[in-house]
Formats: sequence, structure tokens, C-alpha cells
Amino acid sequence: MTQEQLDAFSVLAERLANVAAPEVMVRFRTGLLAESKADSSPVTEADRAAEAALRALIEAEQPDHGIVGEEYGSDRADAEYVWVLDPIDGTKSFVTGKPTFGILVALLHRGRPVIGVIDHPALGDRWVGVAGRPTTFNGRPIATRPCAALDQAWMYATSPTMFRPGPEREAYGRLSGAVRQALYGCDCYAYGLLSCGTVDLVCEATLMPYDYLALVPVIEGAGGIITDWSGQPLGLEGDGTALAAGDRALHQAALARLKDES
Amino acid sequence: MTQEQLDAFSVLAERLANVAAPEVMVRFRTGLLAESKADSSPVTEADRAAEAALRALIEAEQPDHGIVGEEYGSDRADAEYVWVLDPIDGTKSFVTGKPTFGILVALLHRGRPVIGVIDHPALGDRWVGVAGRPTTFNGRPIATRPCAALDQAWMYATSPTMFRPGPEREAYGRLSGAVRQALYGCDCYAYGLLSCGTVDLVCEATLMPYDYLALVPVIEGAGGIITDWSGQPLGLEGDGTALAAGDRALHQAALARLKDES
Repeated sequence: MTQEQLDAFSVLAERLANVAAPEVMVRFRTGLLAESKADSSPVTEADRAAEAALRALIEAEQPDHGIVGEEYGSDRADAEYVWVLDPIDGTKSFVTGKPTFGILVALLHRGRPVIGVIDHPALGDRWVGVAGRPTTFNGRPIATRPCAALDQAWMYATSPTMFRPGPEREAYGRLSGAVRQALYGCDCYAYGLLSCGTVDLVCEATLMPYDYLALVPVIEGAGGIITDWSGQPLGLEGDGTALAAGDRALHQAALARLKDES
Repeated sequence: MTQEQLDAFSVLAERLANVAAPEVMVRFRTGLLAESKADSSPVTEADRAAEAALRALIEAEQPDHGIVGEEYGSDRADAEYVWVLDPIDGTKSFVTGKPTFGILVALLHRGRPVIGVIDHPALGDRWVGVAGRPTTFNGRPIATRPCAALDQAWMYATSPTMFRPGPEREAYGRLSGAVRQALYGCDCYAYGLLSCGTVDLVCEATLMPYDYLALVPVIEGAGGIITDWSGQPLGLEGDGTALAAGDRALHQAALARLKDES
């Protein structure tokens, strides 16, 4: 895989966000109701139409590439290149008219995320991360900020109820009690803000691979770090936890607090 | 007070939002840090500059009117007309780069909120409520939606930690356990969405009058209802609780659940 190939695939990644966005936006605030999936998470016609558009473009342009999507499952997931798609990250925001939901497009090379696009069609905001390149926000390079200690950190999670009762929720409670401010309800936009250097930590759990893989190249290309709560890299297999930080020492301090070592 | 006077004051209310917005936006995502006030809530130079601009315009145009503002306190609060100002509702969102913060402008006539503007300068969205007129969202009339039962309701609060431990948090817990979905982190935008009919309930506490008075005309003019948790109208004196609903029967059901009567 050369940088030239990667850059060409990043053009496709942005075209994917471009084709999904109108499928989502034409249905935004139209009274569309959420259906409940088997796991009780909500889904709408917008999620399905956007993912269908994403898959059609990948199949037309790169028929050998694999696809893993939230709504329509896996095709060729053992391919060298695999696209991982979340047509609407934040469907609960989408159905309530809140514009922080996003379209997530990731490209994996041999299991490692090398391209990520976080696109917010209702806000007109897009983050693009490509291995070997600086991350951009609406076309301009961005960087995370340093943060010297947990008690100075501004942290986001989608909801305090996303953590499973028991050790997971207790670990989150230790960390949220140690930061300057724990905030909620930003969907994947929180990871974009971390990449821009206006947020220090994002700590979440019960995520699926399509929720987090696009975030990895965006955060890494801005100078940040994202792993699971054990400090391991994120891939298609995972325990659903994610901890992102703009500052590497802060990430270590947060991991230690999650593990109750500090 | 005639409808003609009210309509004239509503023009001033929108001009107020217009003068505050650039004071806020010129400082958005500029690395501005939050200071902590005596009550530990954050404040920035943007809050102060926006409120100064708001007060200057009111004093120039309506020097006999009273003013109650978050940052600079009360002047002539016993006047027939009193403006209640929150230059940035959602300062925690503002300092983290999240665009859901808003500018809140209310006009009280003899203590009753008769005009409300909810303006979101980073989103380009504005709700205007004027007693006797239908509420508008970006200039178009809007209405709340019916919702037949709590278990079908989508509800917002800024944060589950905004409720004081003890009876207040327990009451919120009863209600959040009864709704279809409790969501977080939308600031005053949640009340606007309720007015647009994409959200059914907003339940909050530990609010100040400048946090909620602008919401009242917006919600009422869209067909909704907002009171404190005892079902009493909201005014300058209050216990900091607020419960908004798009559907009046749903509001009654939610009040009963907060009181543990259902």
C-alpha cells in the first residue's frame, strides 16, 4: 500500500460521504419515526437508504474490497481492503432533530484503519484522516491540544447510560469523577472536537466497530491517540470500549483511572 | 400592553440576538478558556462581551425597561417590562467547540414572559415566541406533536448530573425510567426541537430564571406547555425545575411520575 494508493482511496472515502449525505438529509426532520432493531437500537429508512448508496458506490468502484456496514452486515470481510460504514452514527439524535449525528466511513488495510471520514451533513462539517497525512477539518489541518492532568480535562461521552452496570460503569464513574468536566450528547462529533483541540478526552463503551474505526485515522492524524480501555489498538474485533485523548500522557492517566490504578 | 407593542418589542428582541451573536461567534473555537465563577459554573470573555452588547442596546432603546442578566445582575427588576438575558446558554458546550449553545432573550411583562428568542449563532437557527402569535423557527410557523404515553416519549436533559442528589435526582430517575428514550446534551436547543415537534419532553433542574424564561413563549406559541415540577408557571422566582412537553396530557403524566403518583 503506497501513499499514492491511500490518497486515491481517500478521494473515494469523501465521495462516499458525499453520496450518503443527501440520502440522510432529505429525510431529516420529516417526521420519520424510529423502528427498534433486535438489539433495541433505533433505525430509520434514512440509515438504510444511506448505507445502500454507500455500498453501491464501493461495489461499482472497488468490487474486490470488503464491506462491513451497520445495517446490511458483512461482505468479503477478509479482503485486503475493507470499508466499515455507519450511515448514521447517532440515530437517536437524528430522529429527534438534533444535528450532531454523523456519517462514518473507514477503510481498513489488513485490519488496520488507514482512512477515516467523520461527516456531519446537518452541520456542514467534515473531518478526514489519512495515514501519513495531517487530519483536516473542513479542509484545514488541525491538531489536538496538550492537557497536563485529568482535573483539567473536558471529557465527552454520548450518555452515562451507555456503560453496562457493574465494573464498566464503575470504571467510567472513577474517570468522570476525576476530570474537570464530564459532558454528554455529542455523538461522533466529540471525537472531531478532540481532534480540533477543544476537547481533551472521549470515553465510551458498548460501541460496535462501525462506531469507532473511522475515528482512529482522524484522531491519530491530529496527534491524538485512541485505544480500547486496555490500551490496545482498535480493530474489527474489540470489547466495545474506546478511550480517545489529545495528549498521550493524559491518555495514560485516564487508562490508569479506568483500571483503578491511580 | 397591546399586540402592536408586543410585536414592536419582538423586533427589538431579535435585534438583541443579532448584536449578541457576533460577540459570541468571534470568540468561538479561538482557544478561549473557561474561568470558574463562584458557583463553579464556567464563564468566558464571550459571555461578558455578549451581555454587555445586549444591555447597551436595551438601555439605548428602552431605558425604562428592567434587565436581569446572567453575568451582570439586575437593574430595575421591578419595572413593568424586564428583559432577562443569558448571553450564552451552554457555556460548557461553547468552550468545547460544540455548536448547541444558544443566546436566550426574554421579555417579561409584569413578571410574565411574553417574548422569547432562542438563537443558535453557530447553527444559524432561531426560534421566536411572542404571546398571541404562532412560534416561528427560522421564520416559519411550527407546532409541537402529540405523544400518547410516556413510554413513547423522547426526552432530553442537559446532563443527568444536573439534578441534586436526593429527591430531585430520584424524581428524574422515575421519569427517565418511564420514557422511551432519555437523551442528553442539547442545551436550550432541546426546547426548540420540542417546539418543532421532534422531541416530546425536556426535564431539567438547577436552572436559573435566565435559563428558562425565554423558553416559555417559544413553547407556548408552538402549542406546548412548560411549568416547574409542581405544575406552576415559570417566573423570576422559582425552584430551578422545569418540565416542558409538546402534549398537555403527556405533561400531566410526566408531572405525576415526578411526584411518584403513577
